[in-house]
Amino acid sequence: MNSQSSELTALMHEIGQKAKAAAARLALAPRAQKDAALMAAAKALRAREAAILEANALDMAKGREKGLSVAMLDRLELTPERVEAMARGLEDVAKLDDPIGKELASWDRPNGLKIKRVSVPLGVIGIIYESRPNVTADAGSLCLKAGNAAILRGGSDSFHSSGEILLALQDGLREAGLPEASIQRVPTTDRAAVGLMLRMDEAIDVVVPRGGRGLIERIREEARMPVFSHLDGLCHTYVDAAADLEQAQAVVLNAKMRRTGICGATETLLVHQDVAGALLPGLSAALNERGCELRADERAGALMAGAAAAKAEDWDTEYLDAILSVKVVDSAQEAIDHINRHGSHHTEAVLSQDDAVLTQFANEVDAGIIMLNASTQFADGGEFGMGAEIGISTGKMHARGPVGTEQLTSYKYVVTGAGHTRP
Amino acid sequence: MNSQSSELTALMHEIGQKAKAAAARLALAPRAQKDAALMAAAKALRAREAAILEANALDMAKGREKGLSVAMLDRLELTPERVEAMARGLEDVAKLDDPIGKELASWDRPNGLKIKRVSVPLGVIGIIYESRPNVTADAGSLCLKAGNAAILRGGSDSFHSSGEILLALQDGLREAGLPEASIQRVPTTDRAAVGLMLRMDEAIDVVVPRGGRGLIERIREEARMPVFSHLDGLCHTYVDAAADLEQAQAVVLNAKMRRTGICGATETLLVHQDVAGALLPGLSAALNERGCELRADERAGALMAGAAAAKAEDWDTEYLDAILSVKVVDSAQEAIDHINRHGSHHTEAVLSQDDAVLTQFANEVDAGIIMLNASTQFADGGEFGMGAEIGISTGKMHARGPVGTEQLTSYKYVVTGAGHTRP
Repeated sequence: MNSQSSELTALMHEIGQKAKAAAARLALAPRAQKDAALMAAAKALRAREAAILEANALDMAKGREKGLSVAMLDRLELTPERVEAMARGLEDVAKLDDPIGKELASWDRPNGLKIKRVSVPLGVIGIIYESRPNVTADAGSLCLKAGNAAILRGGSDSFHSSGEILLALQDGLREAGLPEASIQRVPTTDRAAVGLMLRMDEAIDVVVPRGGRGLIERIREEARMPVFSHLDGLCHTYVDAAADLEQAQAVVLNAKMRRTGICGATETLLVHQDVAGALLPGLSAALNERGCELRADERAGALMAGAAAAKAEDWDTEYLDAILSVKVVDSAQEAIDHINRHGSHHTEAVLSQDDAVLTQFANEVDAGIIMLNASTQFADGGEFGMGAEIGISTGKMHARGPVGTEQLTSYKYVVTGAGHTRP
Repeated sequence: MNSQSSELTALMHEIGQKAKAAAARLALAPRAQKDAALMAAAKALRAREAAILEANALDMAKGREKGLSVAMLDRLELTPERVEAMARGLEDVAKLDDPIGKELASWDRPNGLKIKRVSVPLGVIGIIYESRPNVTADAGSLCLKAGNAAILRGGSDSFHSSGEILLALQDGLREAGLPEASIQRVPTTDRAAVGLMLRMDEAIDVVVPRGGRGLIERIREEARMPVFSHLDGLCHTYVDAAADLEQAQAVVLNAKMRRTGICGATETLLVHQDVAGALLPGLSAALNERGCELRADERAGALMAGAAAAKAEDWDTEYLDAILSVKVVDSAQEAIDHINRHGSHHTEAVLSQDDAVLTQFANEVDAGIIMLNASTQFADGGEFGMGAEIGISTGKMHARGPVGTEQLTSYKYVVTGAGHTRP
């Protein structure tokens, strides 16, 4: 090991130890103290606006020099409005219910033992994300609200912006009397730091990656601790024989085109053969008009003007773009089977006025979120009323679907006896 | 890759694919069908008693030849009574509530969307365990009850016994019209099969190891999927200044000596200095009388006849034997700090009549189970009323404490709209 890497190792170890100590204190912090820190951080964000925008201008200049794409620069850019939105986000998290100390269940045993299950924080959460400076505030605040310490590792292109945002969060923590180390970041753009983080299972309880498939796969491969992640959002909308077709057209247009780059956007449309003729010509015209490219199987293509022929890989592709693959199916069962084979267990929608079909779809489709007569674009913690989310989990362990403050908790059992001994 | 290992790879792949297909069917199986399979399996176990005992005699003979310890042979041995206990265990699991299809939460959104969170199975569970043939029935039945397919990999010393037990479980599945592949085992003692299992994250959703520290650490290191495991049960009992000392003596004796080899046995006793003089002389005599070896710090040792001096490593040792380390502390806070430093987050007990101390201990000790005025030996799914357990998790993700049928589930969201589109 050279001296540089041994220095980095020592630095990461120190960050981990500080986070553990902070987590122990946060676990006991009353709601009012956590909320005070969030409110003070919101104030500090506003007060530091000039410095944040200045740091962001530096990141943006470097990003342009480096040739970042327009989409990446857009995610990187901060404006006064975006700083204000971050500050409001912190205030919104403060207003959420405290997820800690809740009695989740309780029961008495015949021998008189009283058992309670009580929510507690997870501990230390590591968050590894792309160059989106706002995630610094969003993720840090959700962790804090749930009594967890956070170790943030943002993309290197947002290094200066994230640093200034972190200062505001730490202002808030200090003002509320909570340890500054409650929210830390890895203060280097050295990529080796990520590898070290992923082996710190003695200090980090769970890792949340936010980014592209490559990043998430690397993290799943290397992490020694549990990982919350979704790999893909390959979402389907199925229009059943018993669908209200006017409604169906509106929902499909929304599910595909409202925002094409989010994980809850529909990528594949499945249409029952009985309604394909009535739905697809009008729908394809509306999609064409909105600039959506169509890739259809043979039966659908015959009904859709301007549709290209879908290839096998289209059924397995998350476009995240204005492209829709379309397939005609013989039955609800065929739609369900197609989804379970090709879907990513994220969000799947059915449009039908037939309760039996809705029930079958809800039971048989294996996904975190099932939408009955609603757009897949509602797959979002905010839309669920969870206030905010740190991501949407497509795994089945611990958290599935939107990961909000409630999902950033664990529990303990408290058993009360009167000197009970076990026979 | 030689032909033997490529054969094994193909075999494991086939087992995984069969398990996935079975899991899809089990997820939809109604309670009555799962319970019918369990009841029929219990009957089949009894009917196959002679064959099971014969297979077990073969395992026992090989085990003796190999020089297995008395304790290992005891865990391996089956008797008519133990076969009957396994059959009753299956019937007990059948009687438990169905953990699947429960509405865990539901709420309405201002826009009229109705959101439900419903319990679903995890999918496919891999169980890797020592040579304890009864685990085949216990673990298989818990997985089945929660609608999961199981892939069992038992210790090679119990290979023949486990095989016969599996036949009975599959009789039950067949009789109830469920796929036999709902419960499979790895039909080889080749150790390479475990390594292959741990990389089958496309087929196995979670792995449950049951065994010694070495096995569990290897699995945590190698597994690409989540792991439910407890590494240690280094449990403490703290006798506070405000304890009822007669009660304390009875509880400590029970916590240490009822069964010394289980993970909920107390390994370290912490005693407040104000009651050490009144408690320890009598307690040490009672422990001596029961054959318990004592290792005490200086202050405790002065009050305990026959106690050796504790070494630093004693505070970090799970004896699983009739040995108790004893330390006198100045305060409840010192006890809590000691536990949080040396404990394994499994089960920790306090004895006190002071509600403030009980509350402080319950809040500040970081463990899955906190016992207030009760023996640590109650750390057990059966004692919690959960019917049975597949293990006790000391991790904070997904399941903490006893892992019963409810912990072998995930959930999905079902969102009902009326053609809702997202603005």
